[in-house]
Amino acid sequence: MDEFELIDQIFHGPEESTSQVAIGIGDDGAVINVTAGKQAVVVMDTLVADVHFLESQPADSIGHRALAVNLSDIAAMGAVPRWATLSLTLSEMNQNWLNGFAHGFFELAGRHEVALIGGDTTTGPLAVSVTVGGEVEAEGVLRRAGARPGDFVYLSGPIGGAAAALSSTEAYADSALHRALCWPQPRTALGAALGSIAHSAIDVSDGLLADLGHILKASGNLGAEIEADKLPLFKQAVALLGYQGALELALGGGDDYELCFTAPEKRHQEILATGHRLDQDLFWIGRITEHGGCSIHGSEINLDTVSPGYQHVWPR
Amino acid sequence: MDEFELIDQIFHGPEESTSQVAIGIGDDGAVINVTAGKQAVVVMDTLVADVHFLESQPADSIGHRALAVNLSDIAAMGAVPRWATLSLTLSEMNQNWLNGFAHGFFELAGRHEVALIGGDTTTGPLAVSVTVGGEVEAEGVLRRAGARPGDFVYLSGPIGGAAAALSSTEAYADSALHRALCWPQPRTALGAALGSIAHSAIDVSDGLLADLGHILKASGNLGAEIEADKLPLFKQAVALLGYQGALELALGGGDDYELCFTAPEKRHQEILATGHRLDQDLFWIGRITEHGGCSIHGSEINLDTVSPGYQHVWPR
Repeated sequence: MDEFELIDQIFHGPEESTSQVAIGIGDDGAVINVTAGKQAVVVMDTLVADVHFLESQPADSIGHRALAVNLSDIAAMGAVPRWATLSLTLSEMNQNWLNGFAHGFFELAGRHEVALIGGDTTTGPLAVSVTVGGEVEAEGVLRRAGARPGDFVYLSGPIGGAAAALSSTEAYADSALHRALCWPQPRTALGAALGSIAHSAIDVSDGLLADLGHILKASGNLGAEIEADKLPLFKQAVALLGYQGALELALGGGDDYELCFTAPEKRHQEILATGHRLDQDLFWIGRITEHGGCSIHGSEINLDTVSPGYQHVWPR
Repeated sequence: MDEFELIDQIFHGPEESTSQVAIGIGDDGAVINVTAGKQAVVVMDTLVADVHFLESQPADSIGHRALAVNLSDIAAMGAVPRWATLSLTLSEMNQNWLNGFAHGFFELAGRHEVALIGGDTTTGPLAVSVTVGGEVEAEGVLRRAGARPGDFVYLSGPIGGAAAALSSTEAYADSALHRALCWPQPRTALGAALGSIAHSAIDVSDGLLADLGHILKASGNLGAEIEADKLPLFKQAVALLGYQGALELALGGGDDYELCFTAPEKRHQEILATGHRLDQDLFWIGRITEHGGCSIHGSEINLDTVSPGYQHVWPR
């Protein structure tokens, strides 16, 4: 099978029902109708086998994840996703694997009404690069910058599950932790709804301390006081790793893809109502302060043992 | 140096002077102002070392090329490029190489007023994936479909040079052929100007026969009669490979990134004037016919020896 046949078979997903794609895959580029008065949001993320996912994990979960992490960035900007491009590097042609990958990708794309408008395949070690475009009203953009002292800090779901799943074979086999690692759910509806409420937002991809740290730094070197006993943990992680172990992974582990956001205290009820309306869990975890970096209250945890978040460290 | 420092150093290119980038690199995504009444065009292309470029070639030419091939697709759609995202997979951290790559990328980006709005680095065998977004008026979109019998067929420059450069060490060392391979120049001004004149367009990345074939097929299985002696060849390729060899590479070789387009005969003078105004060479090479595929007239060449265009053939 040559490249063109592959693209025809795999990348021509379910026919686009949206009117926004004027020209889809098959020409030199795609043409997209733009909604008057909105701004465009563009995000991209590359996933490499055995760095950002396990080459051995089910192909559909890799397809899902490659799109999900980008939709999560779109959500963290307060935007609504519209289109995606997909670059797939494959070491070998495996029709079953590709069908699985496509199934996972298109199932999530369909659920979020995202049209695949461009694709590209190359030979090499397994890697996936996805770019997603969305739309947002100028006043609805969520930034990392924008947190203010006194803001409440929230999470959209339990964290540390993905890191826990990677901690042992037993944890990987647990269905809730496995789902957290392999099937992250981007919080796009919540992100779009928060645009007019929250002061700042980020998705937790590098670990709460690192990502909340990005908010604090971008907002002018603010601080945060996080209540350890308010942090939503996976009970399966606590059962397997103990409270301290689960808490460490919640603070330092990455790949959770929940939204962390800050909003003025006076809008607390409105935020809870938004979560209720969207059937989306929301957890109050602490407050923004004027100084002092991020401190964790009410825990015996020794923060020295917490990894500073997920980074690719490059060899010199 | 970790990933964040790398991104800071390399991906924060010259500060964007354009007002179109509302939020650039550094948040979860970029936000772009959209021009009222225009459509968005999105293209993407991944380049893998020793498949789409030589790992040994100068780093600045790799940076240039990764953006140029995408700008060429934007040109082939009749659009004006606006922004780009860059995903870079590196096997090792080499500051000199990265500086060279960035220089080549940003020099071309600056010349075309393209803002880099997102970047991503991963470890692995050298590969570059770029997505470029542009804008176009709905009536100015250039498609592959749209050619009509009687249309004149044009090229924006000589072809076969990139393939010739790969044919021998001597050819690779020739400055004109080397430039064709390593420093392709996207015809964006021409593409944007052709939107209201041409019936169809494509960029010559897979070889003229293959790419013109895409136009013929997309336009309803039309034919074309190409005049061999009108095909613009590199005189250096003719000198090194003979007329027959240079012609074969012009027809079957890829990576030229000139525009091939068709337009009604009655607009011939207007097209020549457009080329003159843009200081852009234009070559009439033949006509579109109702049937018969693509035939090459006036040459002794045996088309059986012409490769059917550049494809990545996947192992089964």
